[in-house]
Amino acid sequence: MLTIVLLGTGNLSKHLFEAFSKTEKAKVIQVVGRNNDRLSQFSRTVAVSNDFGSIMDADIYIIAVNDDAILEVSNHLLNKKGIVVHTSGAMNMDVIKVENRGVFYPLQTFTEDKPLDFTTIPICVEAKSLETLQLLKKLAGAISNNVQEIDSAQRKKMHLAAVFVNNFTNYLYGVGEAICLEEGLSFDLLKPLILETAEKVQSMSPWEAQTGPAKRGDKKSIQGHLTLLKDKTQIELYTLISEAIKQAYEKKL
Amino acid sequence: MLTIVLLGTGNLSKHLFEAFSKTEKAKVIQVVGRNNDRLSQFSRTVAVSNDFGSIMDADIYIIAVNDDAILEVSNHLLNKKGIVVHTSGAMNMDVIKVENRGVFYPLQTFTEDKPLDFTTIPICVEAKSLETLQLLKKLAGAISNNVQEIDSAQRKKMHLAAVFVNNFTNYLYGVGEAICLEEGLSFDLLKPLILETAEKVQSMSPWEAQTGPAKRGDKKSIQGHLTLLKDKTQIELYTLISEAIKQAYEKKL
Repeated sequence: MLTIVLLGTGNLSKHLFEAFSKTEKAKVIQVVGRNNDRLSQFSRTVAVSNDFGSIMDADIYIIAVNDDAILEVSNHLLNKKGIVVHTSGAMNMDVIKVENRGVFYPLQTFTEDKPLDFTTIPICVEAKSLETLQLLKKLAGAISNNVQEIDSAQRKKMHLAAVFVNNFTNYLYGVGEAICLEEGLSFDLLKPLILETAEKVQSMSPWEAQTGPAKRGDKKSIQGHLTLLKDKTQIELYTLISEAIKQAYEKKL
Repeated sequence: MLTIVLLGTGNLSKHLFEAFSKTEKAKVIQVVGRNNDRLSQFSRTVAVSNDFGSIMDADIYIIAVNDDAILEVSNHLLNKKGIVVHTSGAMNMDVIKVENRGVFYPLQTFTEDKPLDFTTIPICVEAKSLETLQLLKKLAGAISNNVQEIDSAQRKKMHLAAVFVNNFTNYLYGVGEAICLEEGLSFDLLKPLILETAEKVQSMSPWEAQTGPAKRGDKKSIQGHLTLLKDKTQIELYTLISEAIKQAYEKKL
């Protein structure tokens, strides 16, 4: 059984703790973080510490903190023998100065108190040495059925793609919500459509799934929609995305 | 039991036919359309015709054709006694010239051969008379648990909101797919994230659910992402949406 110390007490740390508690192949033996309130959420079931000088010995140290804090946290692990990994999509593996280093990046959005099925979450691993890579694959495989070996350059691109399909998509949901509320209508009306749009691309390429006035090159509908919009940013967004869709599909004709 | 004639043979017509076949309260007695191939998909279970001069008598005529063809199809129904409705989000109710008219707009995206649970789909109804409205509500209630009375102006706004959360969101999925493929990585990696992003807003406002570099005002990450993008349209999109998110959250601080 692989022993783990989790460094950080945020959403990702909590979700990882839950996931590892379901396997016999790995065990979190300590959670270390500065925030005592958050540490107390772990303290009933595992050893905790707010002192980065009291980190226990383990096979793997998983750093799940903000990107800016990874270097500092990893510097507390310079004398440890285990593997040190961070969990960031955007940071190079080499931000960690420990020799025995790697990356353990679960490609998902983590929300407090919203349970997730970790077995379907892609975990992107990278390591300095082949031996470390094998061990990280074993660790990732203990909680997920979708383990991918991805280098730092690829991971950054995946993180960028994730911004488009997660952050930006969520912003568009927000625009939809704002338009509903302006009309005194509930955002609930859009929820089945939002879910179906996401479900559709689980089995179909977004390229094939595209519909709407912009794809059809339907200028009359586009013009009609633009007259309904008052907000300058919404008009810019509508115009830019419609034009992008139109051009993409014209090219392919 | 309400009798229905469906006019049009596209995805929506097929999905409505399926939905009505599951209730005792309504029955499709005929499907009318120009496309013989598509008509043949209905002909095993219901009367079909490709002659708009041979439409049977029914309580309700549901026009499920492209927006541009609604007027023409409805003109074949001028002498009928039943209610004539269209199913478009974008068109006025009054595009139909029959006195006894209304709108029956299911707010969802319909894909061929992808089954849907109609009971959760919001159906937006509108009618010229109160009596017609009551009957449309009854009809909608026979297949959906979410029936909304919405006028033409509100419906157009909902349709616009739907373009943002469906068409535009799907386009962003496509950008994510393109970025994956450039790196030789599978789009499958993004699918759990896409689904979770949509599931998150089922129980949480998109405003609350927003995360990412733009929301945090993290200029370094934004700059880093921009250096990874080569495509002019992707750069414009990234810049515009990030700026919109940043400004929205700055305002609220």
